[in-house]
Amino acid sequence: MSTKRTKVHITEELDRVIHERARLGIMAMLVGGGEIEFTALKKSLGLTDGNLNAHLRVLEKSGYISETKQFIGRRPRTVYRATEKGVDAFRDYIDRLEQFLKSIS
Amino acid sequence: MSTKRTKVHITEELDRVIHERARLGIMAMLVGGGEIEFTALKKSLGLTDGNLNAHLRVLEKSGYISETKQFIGRRPRTVYRATEKGVDAFRDYIDRLEQFLKSIS
Repeated sequence: MSTKRTKVHITEELDRVIHERARLGIMAMLVGGGEIEFTALKKSLGLTDGNLNAHLRVLEKSGYISETKQFIGRRPRTVYRATEKGVDAFRDYIDRLEQFLKSIS
Repeated sequence: MSTKRTKVHITEELDRVIHERARLGIMAMLVGGGEIEFTALKKSLGLTDGNLNAHLRVLEKSGYISETKQFIGRRPRTVYRATEKGVDAFRDYIDRLEQFLKSIS
């Protein structure tokens, strides 16, 4: 089996699910902050409902975050947290990013 | 004028032109390596002609790189280099990335 890639550049190894800017922000918040509400993510990241939802779906589909719907009295509350797989993927991403920064410094 | 953004997350401030993985690789190579040939970029980054071309167009449109077509004898040669604006944008991007990494460490 031949390959046209003689050298894979380090940036190509960055997880594309995490690399997207909004998702990078979401993952940083969830890995750092435990359980976070939809509205808190929305406020911090300055995203629309639709946009935040789309990014959360991508992260959920990759198994990086989990969603829990709760009721506080009658008030619905949707919270998110990073899964173990998500924490591992995020740490791996950050490691590669640091390697990249080192390689260019 | 009101705004829904109460806090702009640091990842939102990352230059989206540079943040894309392939373009990040291209900029890192050009800022670090001076003038680089199309074929050398292609080899190092493992991209197809079409894909590399599309990313180079985006960077050129932003004024971050410049293209020069030369002939070595009869052989055409297309080289790219980062512009001053591109170098500044790349350094600014890297600064913000480092700030982001510091903020989560």
